[in-house]
Amino acid sequence: MDLATVLGVVLGFIVIIGTILHEGNIAIFFNLPAIAIVLGGMTCATMIHFSMGQFLGIFSVIKKTLLHKTIPPQELIQIMVNYAAISRRDGALALEEEIDRIKDPFMVKGVQMLIDGQDEETIRELMDLEIQYLEERHARGKKILDFMGSSCPSFAMVGTLIGLITMLSRMESPDQIGAGMAVALVCTFYGALLANLVFLPLGGKLGQYSKAEKISMEMIAAGVCAIAKGESPTGVRERMQVFISAKRREQVKAKV
Amino acid sequence: MDLATVLGVVLGFIVIIGTILHEGNIAIFFNLPAIAIVLGGMTCATMIHFSMGQFLGIFSVIKKTLLHKTIPPQELIQIMVNYAAISRRDGALALEEEIDRIKDPFMVKGVQMLIDGQDEETIRELMDLEIQYLEERHARGKKILDFMGSSCPSFAMVGTLIGLITMLSRMESPDQIGAGMAVALVCTFYGALLANLVFLPLGGKLGQYSKAEKISMEMIAAGVCAIAKGESPTGVRERMQVFISAKRREQVKAKV
Amino acid sequence: MDLATVLGVVLGFIVIIGTILHEGNIAIFFNLPAIAIVLGGMTCATMIHFSMGQFLGIFSVIKKTLLHKTIPPQELIQIMVNYAAISRRDGALALEEEIDRIKDPFMVKGVQMLIDGQDEETIRELMDLEIQYLEERHARGKKILDFMGSSCPSFAMVGTLIGLITMLSRMESPDQIGAGMAVALVCTFYGALLANLVFLPLGGKLGQYSKAEKISMEMIAAGVCAIAKGESPTGVRERMQVFISAKRREQVKAKV
Amino acid sequence: MDLATVLGVVLGFIVIIGTILHEGNIAIFFNLPAIAIVLGGMTCATMIHFSMGQFLGIFSVIKKTLLHKTIPPQELIQIMVNYAAISRRDGALALEEEIDRIKDPFMVKGVQMLIDGQDEETIRELMDLEIQYLEERHARGKKILDFMGSSCPSFAMVGTLIGLITMLSRMESPDQIGAGMAVALVCTFYGALLANLVFLPLGGKLGQYSKAEKISMEMIAAGVCAIAKGESPTGVRERMQVFISAKRREQVKAKV
Amino acid sequence: MDLATVLGVVLGFIVIIGTILHEGNIAIFFNLPAIAIVLGGMTCATMIHFSMGQFLGIFSVIKKTLLHKTIPPQELIQIMVNYAAISRRDGALALEEEIDRIKDPFMVKGVQMLIDGQDEETIRELMDLEIQYLEERHARGKKILDFMGSSCPSFAMVGTLIGLITMLSRMESPDQIGAGMAVALVCTFYGALLANLVFLPLGGKLGQYSKAEKISMEMIAAGVCAIAKGESPTGVRERMQVFISAKRREQVKAKV
Repeated sequence: MDLATVLGVVLGFIVIIGTILHEGNIAIFFNLPAIAIVLGGMTCATMIHFSMGQFLGIFSVIKKTLLHKTIPPQELIQIMVNYAAISRRDGALALEEEIDRIKDPFMVKGVQMLIDGQDEETIRELMDLEIQYLEERHARGKKILDFMGSSCPSFAMVGTLIGLITMLSRMESPDQIGAGMAVALVCTFYGALLANLVFLPLGGKLGQYSKAEKISMEMIAAGVCAIAKGESPTGVRERMQVFISAKRREQVKAKV
Repeated sequence: MDLATVLGVVLGFIVIIGTILHEGNIAIFFNLPAIAIVLGGMTCATMIHFSMGQFLGIFSVIKKTLLHKTIPPQELIQIMVNYAAISRRDGALALEEEIDRIKDPFMVKGVQMLIDGQDEETIRELMDLEIQYLEERHARGKKILDFMGSSCPSFAMVGTLIGLITMLSRMESPDQIGAGMAVALVCTFYGALLANLVFLPLGGKLGQYSKAEKISMEMIAAGVCAIAKGESPTGVRERMQVFISAKRREQVKAKV
Repeated sequence: MDLATVLGVVLGFIVIIGTILHEGNIAIFFNLPAIAIVLGGMTCATMIHFSMGQFLGIFSVIKKTLLHKTIPPQELIQIMVNYAAISRRDGALALEEEIDRIKDPFMVKGVQMLIDGQDEETIRELMDLEIQYLEERHARGKKILDFMGSSCPSFAMVGTLIGLITMLSRMESPDQIGAGMAVALVCTFYGALLANLVFLPLGGKLGQYSKAEKISMEMIAAGVCAIAKGESPTGVRERMQVFISAKRREQVKAKV
Repeated sequence: MDLATVLGVVLGFIVIIGTILHEGNIAIFFNLPAIAIVLGGMTCATMIHFSMGQFLGIFSVIKKTLLHKTIPPQELIQIMVNYAAISRRDGALALEEEIDRIKDPFMVKGVQMLIDGQDEETIRELMDLEIQYLEERHARGKKILDFMGSSCPSFAMVGTLIGLITMLSRMESPDQIGAGMAVALVCTFYGALLANLVFLPLGGKLGQYSKAEKISMEMIAAGVCAIAKGESPTGVRERMQVFISAKRREQVKAKV
Repeated sequence: MDLATVLGVVLGFIVIIGTILHEGNIAIFFNLPAIAIVLGGMTCATMIHFSMGQFLGIFSVIKKTLLHKTIPPQELIQIMVNYAAISRRDGALALEEEIDRIKDPFMVKGVQMLIDGQDEETIRELMDLEIQYLEERHARGKKILDFMGSSCPSFAMVGTLIGLITMLSRMESPDQIGAGMAVALVCTFYGALLANLVFLPLGGKLGQYSKAEKISMEMIAAGVCAIAKGESPTGVRERMQVFISAKRREQVKAKV
C-alpha cells in the first residue's frame, strides 16, 4: 500500500488523540451513539445514492487502486522504443514474440492491433474510447468516497441536533447547558474528523492514481500510434517524452 | 424497486429513530407545524421553479426510473454480435425478422435504420441526437430532486427563525431559552434529515440510472454503426467491449 | 401567467404566515427597517452589478417571459411536415404563401431562407448563431434574479449585524438579550424567505422557459435544414421527433 | 462613469447609515482597528495572489473599464453596411479613405486586412485570437475584484476572532459579554458590507462591460468577414443583426 | 522572489499582530497545541491526498515557480522576428547557429524542429501537446496549495471542537465559559489566518505564474509555426502581437 496514505492516517490520528490527551479528558470522546449515527447515516445515504453492487464494490475498488502499480514512464518509453526498432527492422509481425511478455492488458491490446496491421486512425480511435471509459469507471470510486466525505458532516449535524434538542427540552436552567452540549458536539467532531482525515483525502488519492494511470495509457497509445505510422525509434521517444517533465527526460536515456 | 434504495431509507430511519429513543424523549421530535413549514415551503418553491407538468410528473419519473431495467451489457453484446452475423450472411434485410422480438425502442430504431440501408454517418448522427435529448429529459428528474434537497434546509431555517424570533420576543429571562430553542431546532432537524437521507441521495440514484442507460444506448449505437460499416461479428464485439471493465469482458464470451 | 408560479407564491406565503399565526405573535415580524435594509441593499447591489438599462428592464423581462407561450412540439412537427410536403410537391417558392400565416419570427426567418434557396449549411450556421445569441440574452434575466436571490441573505446578515451590535453595545445584562435578538433576527428571516420563496425559484422558472424556447428553436432549425436538404416529409418528422419523449411521439401522429 | 454604479453605491450607503442612525448608536460602528484589519488583510492577500503590476494596475483597469464606451450596435451595423457598399462598388482598396476616421483599433485592424486583400479564413482566425486574448486580459480585472470580495469576509472573521478571543480571555462573568461582542462583530459587519455592496457587484459590472465589448468585437469580426466573402450590404446586415434582439432590429433600419 | 508576495506576507502579519497588540493580550494567541493540530492535521491530510513524491516536492515546486522568470513578451517577439528574417534570407538551416544561444528548452525544441524541416502541422501538434502536459504538471502545485488552504479551516474546526467539548464537559457554571472558549477559538483563528493569508493566495500566485508561462509558450509556438509556414518577419510579429495588449504593442517596436 502507498506509504504516504498509511503514514498520513496514522500520524493524523496520533496528532488528534495526542491533543485530546493533552486537554485531559478522553473518555467523553468515546461515544457509541455518536459513532452509530455518523457512520450509520452516511452508510445508508451511500446505499441510496449508489447501486448495491457499487456500494459493496467500494472496498475492492479502494484496495485494488491503492495496491495498483503503474509502469514507470521511463520504462514505458524504453519498451515502446524497442518495439519501434523491432517493427522497423523485422516488420510488425515480429512483435508477436514480444506480446506474451507484456503484462499490461492495455498494451497487449495495442500491440495486437499493430500485429493485425490496423491503421493508425483505427488504433487511435479504439484506444481513446478505451481510455475514456476506463476513466469513467475509475471516477466512480472517487465519487463514492467524495459522497461519503460530504455525507459525514451532514449526519454529524443531524446527530448533534438530536442531542441538542433532547438536552434543551429537559434543561431547567442554562447552568446545565455544559455537559449536554459537550455530548452533542462529539457528533460534529466525528463528522469533521472522518470527512477531513479519511474520506475526502482518500477520494483525492484515488483521483491521483486514476490520473497517473490515464497518463500511462495515453503514453502507450501515443507510442503504439507512432509505431503504426512507421515512425523511427527516435520519433517514438520524442512523442512519448512530451508526457514527462524536462528534468525527468534527462534521466530517461532510452536507448534507441 | 432497487433493493439498496429501500434498505438505505429504512435502515437510515431506524438508525435515526433508534438514536432518538436512546436519548429518551421522542415526543418533542413530532412537531406538525415544523413538518408543515419544511415540506410546504419546499413544495411551493418547487412549484415556482418548475412548471406544473414537471412538478406533477416527478412521482411518475421517480417510479419509472427506479423500476426501469437496463439490458445487461453482456446480453447487449451477444444480441449485436448475432445481428452482425445475420447481416453478413443474409444481408441487412434479413434483420427484419428479428425486429419484432426487440423490446427496447432505441434498438428497434437502430435496427430499422440498418434495414433501410442508411449509411453509418446518418445512423451515428441520429442516434447521438437521440441519446443527447433523452439525457436532457432524464436530467430534469434529478434536477427537481436536487432542488428539493437544497430547498429543505432553507425552509427549515425559515421555520427555525420563526420559532426563535417568537420565543425570544416573549422571553423574560435567559433561563427560559431551553424549551423554546428545542422546538425551533426541530425544524432544522427535519430539513437536514430530509435533504441528506431522502432527496439528495435519491437524486444521486436517478443520476446513476440515467448514466447506466446512457452507456447502454451508446453500446447499442456503437454496435449498430459497426454493423452498418460492415464489420465482422468479432469487430462488433471488440467495439462494444470497450464500454465494460476488463474483468467483465472475460465473463462475456459472446459467441461469434 | 403560469399557474404553478402563482399557486407556489400564494400557497408559500399562506404556509409561512399560517405558521407565524400559529406561534401567536405576528406583530414582531412586521419591521419596516428590516424590509428597507434587505430590499434596499439588494436593489443597490443589483444596480451596481448590472447596467441601468438591464436593471430597469428586469420587470418587463420577467413579465414577457412568464406570459410567453412556446408552440407545442407536436404542432411544430405538423407544420414542418406540411412545409416539407409543399416544398417537395411545388418547390420551395410555394412556401411564400404560407409565410404570412407564421407568427414566430424565428420560423419566418427560416422559411424565408428556404424560399431564397439558401443551402443547408448557410441556414444551419445562421440559425445556430441566432439560437446562441437569443440564449445569451435570455440568460441575463435569470442571472439578475439569481443575483438578487444571493444578495438578499447577504444584506439580511448586514441588517442582523447592525441590530445585534447596537443591542449588544447597550445591553447591561444577558437577561436583555431576548427582545433585541428577536428584532435583529427578523432581518435574517426576510432574507431567507425572499431568496428561497421568491427570487431563486423565479430565476429557476426563467431558466426552464428559456430552455423550452431553445428546444423549440432547435426543432424549427432541424426541420428547416431537413427541408433544405430535400428530405421527405417522413424524414423531417423523424429528425424532429428526436427532441420529444417516446411517450409523446405516439400522441404525435403528424400526418405526412 | 456609469450612472447605475454611482447611484447604487451612494444609495446603498445611505440605506445602511440610515438604518444605523434609526437604531440610534452610530459611534460604535466607527472602529479604526476593524477597518485596518479588513482592508489591510484583504490588500495583503491580493498582493500575494496577484503580481505587483496587476495589483497596482487594478485602479486604472476599473477606471478605464467604467469610463469605456462601446459603440452602439445599430451604429456598428450601419458602418459595416456602408463599408460593404463601398467595397462592392469601388473595391476593397477604396476603404483606405475610411480607415483614418475609425477610432476603434480592432475595427482599424479588420478594415486594414480587407484592404490588404486577406482571405476570409485568415481574417476570422486572427480576429478570433484577438478577441480571445482581449477577453483573458479583461477577465483579470474581474478576478481581482472577485478575490477582494471573497477576501473581505475572511479577514473580517479573523478580526472578529481576535476581538472575541481577547474579550473572552479577560471576561470574568458572562454579563460582560455584550460590549466586547459588539466591538468584535463590527469587523464582521465591515466584511459583509464591503464584499456585498462594493467589491462583488463592481466585479460583476466589470464582467458585464467585458461581455458587451466582446459582443461588439464579434459583430465587427462578423461584418468584416462577410465583406471579405463578398456579401452584399443586405447580407452583411443580416449577419450582424443576429447579435441583437428582435425588438431592437426594427429600430435599426440600417440604410443599405 | 517576487516582491509582492514577500511584501504581502510580511505586511499581512504586521497588520494582524498589530491589531492583536492593540487589543492588548498577545500571550493567549501563542498556543502550541493549536498550532500542532492545525498544521499537523493539514499535513497528514495532504500526505493522504497526494503521493509521497508530490508531497515532498511541494517546497521545490513553490521555490522554483516563485523564482522562475518568463522572458518578457516584447523580447520574445524580437527574437522570433529575427529568426524569421534569418530563415527567409538564409534558409531554416541557418538557425543552427542561433540554437546554442537559446536558454529556454521549449524554444530550443521549436527551433530544432524548424531546422529539421518539419511541416507546420507536426510542429503545432507537438508544441500543443507539450504546452498541455506542462500545464497539467504546473496545475498540481496549485492544487496542493489549494488543498492545504481548504484543509486548514477544517482541522482548525476539529481543534476548536476538541477544546470546546473538553471545556464544556468540565464546566460547572456558564460563568466559566469565557476562558475555555477563548482557548478553543485560537484554533479557528489559526485556520482562518493560514488559509487566507498564506495558502490560498500562494496557490493563486502559482496559478498566475503558470498562466504567464503558458502564454509565453503559446507565443513561441505561434512564432515558430508562422516561420515554418514561411511568413515574413512582419507576419510573424503580427501573429505574436495578438497575445499582448494594444498599449504594450506600441512599446514593442520589434525591428523587422
